Amino acid sequence: MRTPVIIVNFKAYAEVEGDRSIGLAEACQDVSDETGVSFAVCPPITSLSAVAKAVTIPVMAQHMDPRKPGAATGWTTPELIKAAGAKGTLLNHSEHRMVLADLALAIQMAKEKGLECCVCTDTEATSAAAASLAPEFIAVEPPELIGGDVSVTDAKPEVVSEAVAAVRRVDEDIKVLCGAGVKTGRDVAKAVELGASGVLLASGVVKAKEPRKVLLDLVQFL
Amino acid sequence: MRTPVIIVNFKAYAEVEGDRSIGLAEACQDVSDETGVSFAVCPPITSLSAVAKAVTIPVMAQHMDPRKPGAATGWTTPELIKAAGAKGTLLNHSEHRMVLADLALAIQMAKEKGLECCVCTDTEATSAAAASLAPEFIAVEPPELIGGDVSVTDAKPEVVSEAVAAVRRVDEDIKVLCGAGVKTGRDVAKAVELGASGVLLASGVVKAKEPRKVLLDLVQFL
Amino acid sequence: MRTPVIIVNFKAYAEVEGDRSIGLAEACQDVSDETGVSFAVCPPITSLSAVAKAVTIPVMAQHMDPRKPGAATGWTTPELIKAAGAKGTLLNHSEHRMVLADLALAIQMAKEKGLECCVCTDTEATSAAAASLAPEFIAVEPPELIGGDVSVTDAKPEVVSEAVAAVRRVDEDIKVLCGAGVKTGRDVAKAVELGASGVLLASGVVKAKEPRKVLLDLVQFL
Amino acid sequence: MRTPVIIVNFKAYAEVEGDRSIGLAEACQDVSDETGVSFAVCPPITSLSAVAKAVTIPVMAQHMDPRKPGAATGWTTPELIKAAGAKGTLLNHSEHRMVLADLALAIQMAKEKGLECCVCTDTEATSAAAASLAPEFIAVEPPELIGGDVSVTDAKPEVVSEAVAAVRRVDEDIKVLCGAGVKTGRDVAKAVELGASGVLLASGVVKAKEPRKVLLDLVQFL
Repeated sequence: MRTPVIIVNFKAYAEVEGDRSIGLAEACQDVSDETGVSFAVCPPITSLSAVAKAVTIPVMAQHMDPRKPGAATGWTTPELIKAAGAKGTLLNHSEHRMVLADLALAIQMAKEKGLECCVCTDTEATSAAAASLAPEFIAVEPPELIGGDVSVTDAKPEVVSEAVAAVRRVDEDIKVLCGAGVKTGRDVAKAVELGASGVLLASGVVKAKEPRKVLLDLVQFL
Repeated sequence: MRTPVIIVNFKAYAEVEGDRSIGLAEACQDVSDETGVSFAVCPPITSLSAVAKAVTIPVMAQHMDPRKPGAATGWTTPELIKAAGAKGTLLNHSEHRMVLADLALAIQMAKEKGLECCVCTDTEATSAAAASLAPEFIAVEPPELIGGDVSVTDAKPEVVSEAVAAVRRVDEDIKVLCGAGVKTGRDVAKAVELGASGVLLASGVVKAKEPRKVLLDLVQFL
Repeated sequence: MRTPVIIVNFKAYAEVEGDRSIGLAEACQDVSDETGVSFAVCPPITSLSAVAKAVTIPVMAQHMDPRKPGAATGWTTPELIKAAGAKGTLLNHSEHRMVLADLALAIQMAKEKGLECCVCTDTEATSAAAASLAPEFIAVEPPELIGGDVSVTDAKPEVVSEAVAAVRRVDEDIKVLCGAGVKTGRDVAKAVELGASGVLLASGVVKAKEPRKVLLDLVQFL
Repeated sequence: MRTPVIIVNFKAYAEVEGDRSIGLAEACQDVSDETGVSFAVCPPITSLSAVAKAVTIPVMAQHMDPRKPGAATGWTTPELIKAAGAKGTLLNHSEHRMVLADLALAIQMAKEKGLECCVCTDTEATSAAAASLAPEFIAVEPPELIGGDVSVTDAKPEVVSEAVAAVRRVDEDIKVLCGAGVKTGRDVAKAVELGASGVLLASGVVKAKEPRKVLLDLVQFL
């Protein structure tokens, strides 16, 4: 994925149930086409395949289980995600934390399938830890700010800059994103100023009355 | 769902990745149409929507998380399953065990959405326990026989008949299925003899070279 | 254990760290000796053995893992609990929910070691479900009332009476307790009126400035 | 703790139930006193306090939950471990894996209480990741060799030397131990040659007919 990138996590909001995920993904595609800014979308797993058929911007899963094909009832393997047309996956989101050994295994299994991983973390320390597992992206998000009204870039800018520095010390190739409360173009610009390669956001876009308007606002300073 | 019913759990086998799930679901549909026997299919979550569009027999999820619409990254809510066109879900499969309180909540949330639940259990005691939660189906499967060569109906017929009796003592309306090692029409017939309202099976069909042949064999004595 | 019984769950409160657990257990013992009312105490696992040596009233663990002796680093087996001198264990507390199959196994393993189980539940349905697993006690506690100021016997008396009825329909020998917000002798008396065989309580006693006074108040109408 | 150190994990073996933990801890103490080699012991949580009273070598818990004092039924807080007289804890053992964010929090909470942490890992990558969380010790153990007959130092010496190098790149102050299959003095000597600061072992000592003999053998080349 080109950076700076805006990754939109659809979560399981009512606004994206069923085919409504396609509409939101298409809005992201349109804004990406019009502005040239790089976007990726993470629809609910039940819409992953339909969204991947509908848009050309990268589609990612919200989570992936480090399980092999086989007797894994109800789990989502790398192969299933790949077959659905996704290009990668979020891992270890604050709403879906993973065991360290599983996280390491998931990243390795994703690589073998050519899937890109964005590992979510909560602090400088866990960001640095995740860096040793060599995912393509790390998105640092203080959990207490997720879904809130104040952007991490205003509330705790040092979390972003320290995570960027800590990750670079371990592996310069990993791109650091930030998230939690990010809602405006100013927030995105500030994230980039702090060293981030983009943002991971959700409710600000998904629950917006006019997502297109929010998306255009988000990219205005990029 | 009419009974006796044959529920085919596709698990996460390589044989059902991507659109291959549709092929197997259509084979079940064909055999159901030709023989009049009731079938349901449980494709991987990534193919749930596509399979539900392709067939008219009931499509079920392999698992459902008792979460409300909203900030539930990577979890599968009742609403998402419903919007995908599924008619119900497996719950508490031996490969995906659930916390008792969550299982109770999941069944209640499914009912509110008009989704049917098939709760998997391992013993007479847990089958009776699940009955108090009032799901539509309970599928008893001794874990040590799952995926094996010997059918539960031969290896431990008493597990089936005792589960049927225990569930009926709690709630006569709940249908009991059995599973684990079920592969032939004789196994299915034996299950019905033991009081079961059908079977839940997976590898015997999914990994078969000619699934249609296996499916026809399965229903021959019904 | 004789009923009505008052089970005091020490949880992990600062007030019961280290040898302070012994002091509180001795207060329970004294009140039991003086009034003839049956008591049991659940100290933190780190004080289980010391408390069991210090008092003669039944001592129970707060949780038990259904694991066999062996390679189970950091888990608490039935054998370890038994060897510590405990007479039983709480299971499935709202702060420590268990997978249904594990809960069934834990109860069975406890029985084999002569340990009594008190399974915590949250609703009529899960209480009835737990009854099929045949523990000695079921303690119904609406989670939203735990640690609060209003007793379940006032806020939701029907939860208690319905749980008692539901459990009796499954197995008349199981004693039903209730908990959540229980703090006074009047609450305990009301619990018994509603059909309960006692109460499970925690903060009301553990965080009291004068636990002995609270304990004496609790038993005054028994 | 002085290094090289030999940490003996008692797990939940039948051989260490109840007061038998004290006997094994005393054997470790005796060998430490006689040979001057540094030892630490990890008894079952139910014996933690009694063992800590019986010996002067460091006593560690097998696991710790990153929970604050309070309503944490059945969980083991840093405060409880500290109050029991322990000097530290194992974390993330292969039989008790932890979520990354919890592991980071546990290490931080332990530091605040003056408890030393030994984080168990399985690969070079997870060892490096754990190093960013700044525990005092990291014990790398390939899970497939744990409890087996071949020492990691013979079967996969490169796992040890690579983990040592990877951890040092992140934080030179962290001591790396190794484990899995370690049983003899030659294994321990080899571990030290490979850069380790000691070993973490269990069954080789705990299940030995004559633990003292095994312990003396283990330290002979130190």
